Amino acid sequence: MENSASKILERAIDQFALLPGVGRRTALKYALSIIKRGDSEVTRFLNAISALKTDLHSCSVCHNICEDDMCEICKNPRRDKSTICVVENIKDILAIERTGQFRGVYHVLGGVISPIDAIGPNDLNIASLLARLQNEKVEEIIFALSATVEGDSTAFYISKKIPAELNIKLSAIAKGISVGNELDYTDELTLGKSIINRTLFK
Amino acid sequence: MENSASKILERAIDQFALLPGVGRRTALKYALSIIKRGDSEVTRFLNAISALKTDLHSCSVCHNICEDDMCEICKNPRRDKSTICVVENIKDILAIERTGQFRGVYHVLGGVISPIDAIGPNDLNIASLLARLQNEKVEEIIFALSATVEGDSTAFYISKKIPAELNIKLSAIAKGISVGNELDYTDELTLGKSIINRTLFK
Repeated sequence: MENSASKILERAIDQFALLPGVGRRTALKYALSIIKRGDSEVTRFLNAISALKTDLHSCSVCHNICEDDMCEICKNPRRDKSTICVVENIKDILAIERTGQFRGVYHVLGGVISPIDAIGPNDLNIASLLARLQNEKVEEIIFALSATVEGDSTAFYISKKIPAELNIKLSAIAKGISVGNELDYTDELTLGKSIINRTLFK
Repeated sequence: MENSASKILERAIDQFALLPGVGRRTALKYALSIIKRGDSEVTRFLNAISALKTDLHSCSVCHNICEDDMCEICKNPRRDKSTICVVENIKDILAIERTGQFRGVYHVLGGVISPIDAIGPNDLNIASLLARLQNEKVEEIIFALSATVEGDSTAFYISKKIPAELNIKLSAIAKGISVGNELDYTDELTLGKSIINRTLFK
């Protein structure tokens, strides 16, 4: 279509295609679905997205998202400040919070060390984590990073940076077979880990 | 997450999940990708989407999208106004335009008759099509609708509404095997149609 209407559509397609995993066909589908909606629905859509940038900030302590200077988890007096769970991104906080199994606080790295993607330690929120350890009374750091070479080496890198005299317990979330999964369907590496890290009946 | 930051995030997820085929996990991925972007990038994204509603209108003749009262195809003096291709939606116009094989004009129905979805003839742009036939000198109508029962019965319904005295040729796009496809992979119905509608070598 060489008409001017298509320029507006093209621009919207270009923008939708910037969303992760969205190709031009899907972007067109999204754009057409917007055209079909009522004005107030589109306004609601735009406002909700714009609020993500205008109303959300990064927590000055843990880099979680929040409305103010500090996130609700760091603010919450009932959260155990002596246990910090180190995660790659905000999505991981949401996932762990959904389990309801963790009452400590978090620290968002913003990724993992990955030379292939040109992400070094200085691109991550590692300095602010180390600073926290000096200022707060931290007893344990739980690494909840991806079960990949990058995740493991990031945890290793950080663990080497933590002064031994602070006497902080370092741990990583358990690797093992998924609940409900059959052994057959579990890859050998995970199955191997699950045997090594077996838990005792008490 | 029972924190207030998540309300803003939740709202954005709700809105992204309204896009066709987007679940809550994908919506979260989209929302987080927006948070990560720079302000100007997000502004560009929002402007492009908002332009879809503010700057695009429906063509008063064919219901295609356009910036003014009439779309560029209907306005174009080089398009053959005597041939109308009837399509379900704007996406179909884009698809046919990409082929470069059609120099006529279009009429967008906005869907097909589908009792199961409670879409009757009055929900579609059929009356405006019939009005066009009275006002313009139309020689042929090509139905380019989905190769489904609904598509076929919509074409049949419209064809019955067209006064015979107008002497308009009615046709439908050919059904046959896809170019490059092997016969093996073509379903029997399509293959059957392709034999019945065989084309002669000249």
